[in-house]
Amino acid sequence: MLFQDIIIKKRDGIELSDNEISEFVQGYSTGSIPDYQAASLVMAIFLNGMSGRELATLTSEMIKSGIVVDLSDIEGVKVDKHSTGGVGDKISIPLAPLVAACGVIVPMVSGRGLGHTGGTLDKLESIPGFNVNMSIEEYRQTIAKIGLCMIGQTKELAPADKKIYSLRDATGTVPSIPLISSSIMSKKLAEGIDSLVLDVKTGSGAFMPTLEKAQILARTLVDIGKRSGKRVTAFLTRMDDPLGFAIGNSSEIIESIKVLRGEGPEDVTQLTIALGAEMLILGDIAKTQEEAVSLLEEAISSGAAMDKFRQMIELQGGNPKVIDDFSLFPSWSHEIDIKVDTSGWIESINSTEVGMAGVMIGAGRAVVSDLVDHGVGIKIIKKSGEKVTVGDTVAVLQYNNPENAKAAAQRIKNAYKIGENKITSKPLIFKKIN
Amino acid sequence: MLFQDIIIKKRDGIELSDNEISEFVQGYSTGSIPDYQAASLVMAIFLNGMSGRELATLTSEMIKSGIVVDLSDIEGVKVDKHSTGGVGDKISIPLAPLVAACGVIVPMVSGRGLGHTGGTLDKLESIPGFNVNMSIEEYRQTIAKIGLCMIGQTKELAPADKKIYSLRDATGTVPSIPLISSSIMSKKLAEGIDSLVLDVKTGSGAFMPTLEKAQILARTLVDIGKRSGKRVTAFLTRMDDPLGFAIGNSSEIIESIKVLRGEGPEDVTQLTIALGAEMLILGDIAKTQEEAVSLLEEAISSGAAMDKFRQMIELQGGNPKVIDDFSLFPSWSHEIDIKVDTSGWIESINSTEVGMAGVMIGAGRAVVSDLVDHGVGIKIIKKSGEKVTVGDTVAVLQYNNPENAKAAAQRIKNAYKIGENKITSKPLIFKKIN
Repeated sequence: MLFQDIIIKKRDGIELSDNEISEFVQGYSTGSIPDYQAASLVMAIFLNGMSGRELATLTSEMIKSGIVVDLSDIEGVKVDKHSTGGVGDKISIPLAPLVAACGVIVPMVSGRGLGHTGGTLDKLESIPGFNVNMSIEEYRQTIAKIGLCMIGQTKELAPADKKIYSLRDATGTVPSIPLISSSIMSKKLAEGIDSLVLDVKTGSGAFMPTLEKAQILARTLVDIGKRSGKRVTAFLTRMDDPLGFAIGNSSEIIESIKVLRGEGPEDVTQLTIALGAEMLILGDIAKTQEEAVSLLEEAISSGAAMDKFRQMIELQGGNPKVIDDFSLFPSWSHEIDIKVDTSGWIESINSTEVGMAGVMIGAGRAVVSDLVDHGVGIKIIKKSGEKVTVGDTVAVLQYNNPENAKAAAQRIKNAYKIGENKITSKPLIFKKIN
Repeated sequence: MLFQDIIIKKRDGIELSDNEISEFVQGYSTGSIPDYQAASLVMAIFLNGMSGRELATLTSEMIKSGIVVDLSDIEGVKVDKHSTGGVGDKISIPLAPLVAACGVIVPMVSGRGLGHTGGTLDKLESIPGFNVNMSIEEYRQTIAKIGLCMIGQTKELAPADKKIYSLRDATGTVPSIPLISSSIMSKKLAEGIDSLVLDVKTGSGAFMPTLEKAQILARTLVDIGKRSGKRVTAFLTRMDDPLGFAIGNSSEIIESIKVLRGEGPEDVTQLTIALGAEMLILGDIAKTQEEAVSLLEEAISSGAAMDKFRQMIELQGGNPKVIDDFSLFPSWSHEIDIKVDTSGWIESINSTEVGMAGVMIGAGRAVVSDLVDHGVGIKIIKKSGEKVTVGDTVAVLQYNNPENAKAAAQRIKNAYKIGENKITSKPLIFKKIN
């Protein structure tokens, strides 16, 4: 069969067979199918969609393009967490050591920031010496020792995903639910997990702005997981205001340390506990949510979660002294207070705009090749639902390079919508799907 | 603007601006836009379509990628004809010298056969010495001398079309009305014409099997022409049975010579006269169809049309003696009579199947790189509406290489559908659109 005939089937809305999907993924990743044929098929998938069966096959073929890490000789249930990305979303950082301290094995492969959302790897790299580029063997050994490791995608894990993702980025085919979900799940299922908790975000700072689309994505991800024989739970959570008060890299690690001390912001702590409880249940550590929550609270108050974080930093080459001495983190040299010029109630904060202001000062990336300044960021002072008076500082821009600072500060100011009435806040967690 | 953003607009069904279409065509033909981005956009165009304005711009940008032949110093109205392709469709060959003999200037750039349909260039090359690969300057000079020249596409004419066509062929995006029509019209409008007559075929041997789709294609082609300031008439014509009795290369030239002698098959002659009359009207040679038809008949009976054909053969390097001595053509060495094994009436002949049988013995090409055997072909003895008795010969396979001959003969036999009742034949010309 010519590869054109496979493209034509999908172009005409006909389901592809498992063999045809395999021919695409293996052919494209080995180079026998050229970019232009893959691009044509990917656009046809974007516009005509994929069935659940096609999607499960696409994901498993992407996994088969590389290796699946074998963690079977490590005792315990392996559970990971993935977020679709938000602003100020540092949840993975306190969450992973917290649940690992309770006995769940956490093999976590994370990503970098792009556009308005930050990335776990960039945040971890603000810890001096911290190495996210470990080999698969080092990753295995770290998990075997402490039940936890946080690294970046390696060339062995779902290499077809990396190639297809680059093509989608260049050909205008990124925001497609089938393509997004197969990309996420292929990487996660190659890590060696038994179960997965997903944080699917919706709102002004999320890639899926509407609850409806986020729900379709969540169900698609859970369905792929189920078809691969894994237990998967997705939470639909609110991403309107930034999460917590810190947006940046060093500053988000510091806020994470505060969560592990029991002194974190309410929303970050609440979400960490909710996702953590589900991981404990999927990890066969707790039977009920109440039991799970009390185990998590105990791990925080006893210092066990912080110890686990310290062990991970040490084993991954970082300086664990940062936990007790925040001056060891890269920092900022200048500040601009962002003040409101209206009195009233904060109705909303457009997180995408706040995230993009962060990109302007180097806290994030506009394109993959941009360098990140780990010291800079945005400190949120006032959030939605709070009362403000003319001249009040609602946020602080913390920067080093003055080039775009004023424009970034203006962008944050514009992101605050002030109204005359106090708004009632929406719940942080909308729904749980499994 | 990033090229991705142009792809995204079309992906989301938004009309592209003239500048964006220009960026695509010029960027792709000069190589600054890679194949994979072009492939993605072309699939989005395939699935989401193009407006009349977009299509006119796409066509004019494809023309601008090369030169437009300047024939303004040659007196007379320049009129060409294009057919969407059929089986036994040699109409261009008697038509072009016939209307040129009446005073219309005919600059004709034709194509080669592919799949079940033959190509004017392959047929002309069965005349020993005939050169279809002339330079633009030789083409201009020939037209200046005799008001007629028939060549193949040169690298100067709409080179973007050639590049986009190859990409479409490899990426499953050929049968798209906007893409087909911009491809046809860009080549025709670059030839230097004032007017164009189109023969849009529909039926079992056409690329557009339904009348409805053929009608959309015809209207699209006429609309592009009108937007470019050209007078364009399209005829929707029947392509069920093969046209005439000869399918092949030499044999179709011979049948064309018979048309110019006034001894051609009824259907071929009727279509030649109908299209020719329209060309005379568009060429300001005749005012009414009656006047045009009588001029054409006069050009045949006086021998003026045959003289024009002879002049063209001479000026294009061919041996004009073929007109009087058919033994000078390449020929076949073996025959198989195709006999029916049922008595009854011929209900239909599937021309696509007959054309593919021709490809099997070398009369046509399965892929562009195939070589054509100019001597071989199929002689049709009986057509739809005729009565047959068991053992009657309905067609003759004329071949040189015995390899696929039996299978080809069987394929022709299967293409004949014999029924119990006499069918009433459909008209040859369904509709005229201008």
